[in-house]
Amino acid sequence: MPSTSPNPSDDARRPSLSFWFDPASTYAYLSAMRIEDLAAAAQVRVVVKPFLLGPIFQSQGWDTSPFNIYPAKGRYMVRDVERVAKSRGVTFAMPKTFPAHSVAAARAVIVADENGRGLAMACALFDAQFARGQDISDPATLSACARRVGLSSDDVLDAIAMDRIKRLLRTQTDAAAAAGIFGAPTFVTDDGEVFWGDDRLEMAFTWALTCARRPSEPETL
Amino acid sequence: MPSTSPNPSDDARRPSLSFWFDPASTYAYLSAMRIEDLAAAAQVRVVVKPFLLGPIFQSQGWDTSPFNIYPAKGRYMVRDVERVAKSRGVTFAMPKTFPAHSVAAARAVIVADENGRGLAMACALFDAQFARGQDISDPATLSACARRVGLSSDDVLDAIAMDRIKRLLRTQTDAAAAAGIFGAPTFVTDDGEVFWGDDRLEMAFTWALTCARRPSEPETL
Repeated sequence: MPSTSPNPSDDARRPSLSFWFDPASTYAYLSAMRIEDLAAAAQVRVVVKPFLLGPIFQSQGWDTSPFNIYPAKGRYMVRDVERVAKSRGVTFAMPKTFPAHSVAAARAVIVADENGRGLAMACALFDAQFARGQDISDPATLSACARRVGLSSDDVLDAIAMDRIKRLLRTQTDAAAAAGIFGAPTFVTDDGEVFWGDDRLEMAFTWALTCARRPSEPETL
Repeated sequence: MPSTSPNPSDDARRPSLSFWFDPASTYAYLSAMRIEDLAAAAQVRVVVKPFLLGPIFQSQGWDTSPFNIYPAKGRYMVRDVERVAKSRGVTFAMPKTFPAHSVAAARAVIVADENGRGLAMACALFDAQFARGQDISDPATLSACARRVGLSSDDVLDAIAMDRIKRLLRTQTDAAAAAGIFGAPTFVTDDGEVFWGDDRLEMAFTWALTCARRPSEPETL
């Protein structure tokens, strides 16, 4: 999305908040639908960090989402996301397949981000999946989302097949695991503080601002 | 704690919110420290429901807390509870042993609740464990907590050894599992809506009030 900053150099000086998500995550959908407004209000820059939960779950001995492995937790999650989405005026319905096979979608966000449309692409994919019931592993969905955010669908589909993009996603997933990330969404501030879950988004923004002020604003001022 | 209602019959007519917790739960500690104030503000009655997470975890194939089984999640939990506690002015430190062996403590809350001191006893035990580093499976801790809430420590220690109290806790733990409860704290409204986690306490109170109004206040009024 276009920066609201009058000067591009202002944007680079802002504190940032890294938004780590797997495109198949229901709670990351809730965050994606509100993070741009919160970031604008806080004057914090969002850094988009798509990664895959699959390898992280596998390292914990899980072959699918914990919401599938533990049915009571899975049923609760659907009800909880329904309630929160409704309270925010956000449409939500579980897609037929959960979790979606999100490798291509995560790569597509990386490609879009190289063109300044990372968050917009993430939002388009989340909306397709959780508001419109579409399959984000389907090239037709990826193409429609790319066009929706002003990118060439051919260029995006070509790019997600490239080794360079595949490697970037693998590297980012490894970095997530190394940072102690075990679920999505996760938010990380410039000083490395980790916040897990849509419920911590406000606290993460507050932290992002506070840690940014520390070096230049001693407590005695 | 004493009711703030001027008339006991007023209290019985209020909507209720059931507070399900294992006395060893860190996030239930966060809720226990604020639920009485929130309940008074909302004019909702809190029903104390101690239960044991152990049997529920065992039915999922876990032999201890998921915070121990999944170390990244466990480290994050400690940091998260520290931050939230600090933001609320609540003292928090992890006890030496986690999770505590909470059977005796859960029984003691049941006994205290039969004497109108259930929530007070829960708060005393949580404070002993997470603010003072005490072992809630130690009879000395149980005795001190009983006295602190105005009960006879001998009576409480005698009662928790009784088959009737042991059965009540087993029944309540079975009821938790049957209600789809898989973690603590969990809050359940009069119409059976389930809210998991300290982060949902405000939403649970709002729901408790809304569902209570539905039968007597049709939308056309």
